[in-house]
Amino acid sequence: MTRFAVTTLGTGAALPARGRSPSAQVLDANGSLYLIDCGEGTQERLRASGANFQRIRHVFIGHLHGDHYLGLMGLISSFHLMGRSGPLDVHAPEGLQAIIDLQLRTSRTFLRYPLTFHIIRPENGRTLLEDEHVTVHGLALRHRLPCTGFVFREQPAPRNLRKDQVHRVPHFERNAVKAGEDLVLDDGTVVPNAELTVAPPPPRSYAYCSDTAYTPGIVPFIRQVDLLYHEATFTEQLAERARETLHSTARQAAMIAREAGARRLLLGHFSSRYKNTEVLLAEARAVFPSVEASSDGCTYAIDQRTIV
Amino acid sequence: MTRFAVTTLGTGAALPARGRSPSAQVLDANGSLYLIDCGEGTQERLRASGANFQRIRHVFIGHLHGDHYLGLMGLISSFHLMGRSGPLDVHAPEGLQAIIDLQLRTSRTFLRYPLTFHIIRPENGRTLLEDEHVTVHGLALRHRLPCTGFVFREQPAPRNLRKDQVHRVPHFERNAVKAGEDLVLDDGTVVPNAELTVAPPPPRSYAYCSDTAYTPGIVPFIRQVDLLYHEATFTEQLAERARETLHSTARQAAMIAREAGARRLLLGHFSSRYKNTEVLLAEARAVFPSVEASSDGCTYAIDQRTIV
Repeated sequence: MTRFAVTTLGTGAALPARGRSPSAQVLDANGSLYLIDCGEGTQERLRASGANFQRIRHVFIGHLHGDHYLGLMGLISSFHLMGRSGPLDVHAPEGLQAIIDLQLRTSRTFLRYPLTFHIIRPENGRTLLEDEHVTVHGLALRHRLPCTGFVFREQPAPRNLRKDQVHRVPHFERNAVKAGEDLVLDDGTVVPNAELTVAPPPPRSYAYCSDTAYTPGIVPFIRQVDLLYHEATFTEQLAERARETLHSTARQAAMIAREAGARRLLLGHFSSRYKNTEVLLAEARAVFPSVEASSDGCTYAIDQRTIV
Repeated sequence: MTRFAVTTLGTGAALPARGRSPSAQVLDANGSLYLIDCGEGTQERLRASGANFQRIRHVFIGHLHGDHYLGLMGLISSFHLMGRSGPLDVHAPEGLQAIIDLQLRTSRTFLRYPLTFHIIRPENGRTLLEDEHVTVHGLALRHRLPCTGFVFREQPAPRNLRKDQVHRVPHFERNAVKAGEDLVLDDGTVVPNAELTVAPPPPRSYAYCSDTAYTPGIVPFIRQVDLLYHEATFTEQLAERARETLHSTARQAAMIAREAGARRLLLGHFSSRYKNTEVLLAEARAVFPSVEASSDGCTYAIDQRTIV
């Protein structure tokens, strides 16, 4: 089975505290690594996670509050010092390139590898990336700065040949049959694909929603997502503060998960005022039972669904 | 006895590795805290050190390679979120203010406290700061970017009244006598100050030299310094690499300490290629015996010298 797992490197809000670092995650899709947000110290936590982080090709930055991007300059610089030659693509709001360019210029750093910025804008369903492993779509979050969420979906796997039918399919036809084509025998007989193959497990998906006020507008774009990370900066007791700062309560995060029919919900971006996550977790669980509170350095694997 | 101690928060070179973070130190001069360089993650290590780091009023950044300043934006932002109202003064090369201003503008952060930048240039003996606790002078280091070292000296303490003479000095004359004045009695008799007081311990001093090629030009400005932190990125085996990159070997650091007649030498800014510091330490010790290798999170106190 291929791997589809997210490691939360930082699960705190703007002020680092209580063992919670600023936002950063790495998604491993079958060995291909995608970095999502990059708060201060991310490179240190990537190292600690044991990830071969030179393999990160794409970085996605949702918005330009410091706790979501301040680690990028150091990571770019370390890639350079570590001898990186392969390209790095940063998908981020307008403004980040100017910040990075100014610092590269000031420190007279001439990168050994191609660094490309792709400007993103909050827009539901917009395709941001399609490579051999995943497609990435944007989500229009609602925050004090333009803020984009991300939905990662595995590329569909080929159909699987039935073990008891493998002998009927010549080697040179197997890729075509796995792609869904019927098999035409030498005598002209057509063997329908359904006789020869079974459907692969459905592609897995992961959605990242941080930072945002309660925004039901994203629901149609994250329907039945396997894992939804949604910020839960506050509890309902601070609903007013959440409204003012355009953040969500744990209950609101759970409502989004329920409305979207998500399989699992992962809470994060906790305000430093919470000593532990019990109260946030309890509030969310009342609305959506399949919920966990993310911790720094933990990995959340998404299993393939069995086919019914 | 008042406190004069430096805590090395980060003792690594540009690439964080082996438990060594990028450069940052905090000097505690009688409860007044001065931050010297501020690599990525400094705020996290300040928190871990237990220092009441809101008390930092002055930050000194020697040069604008990322491993010496990338933690500043996060620290400035955290001060803001923690409700700071007192001023913060950053002494740094030209260019840093533009980097910070751009990021504050992009994130639409309006600081609650006054933030002032003071442009410094590498110049031996130039006074950068004088407050009630210390004076700070610059050192002209030699590196790939303009690079300033720093010498911190305690302000001279007042003279101490001799215990057996205290009764002769009226309360209202004590500050004057401690400041060195003779005492004039009601009958006009002059009691020479030397009869009434003893000299205080000499002011303590700390010099910070990172990053730099071997630069004997600084020696007259750090003579008899109590503690000299000098970078030792490489051993002599990589002397050529040190020359190319304008760094020092451990031996060169020791030569500077010896030429200056420093009391103690503290090595730091170790290249990530060294698994431990034994080889660097041995090389320096052969030239200057009173040497230590700094470690992340350690505090080096400077005792007052006894008066002969």
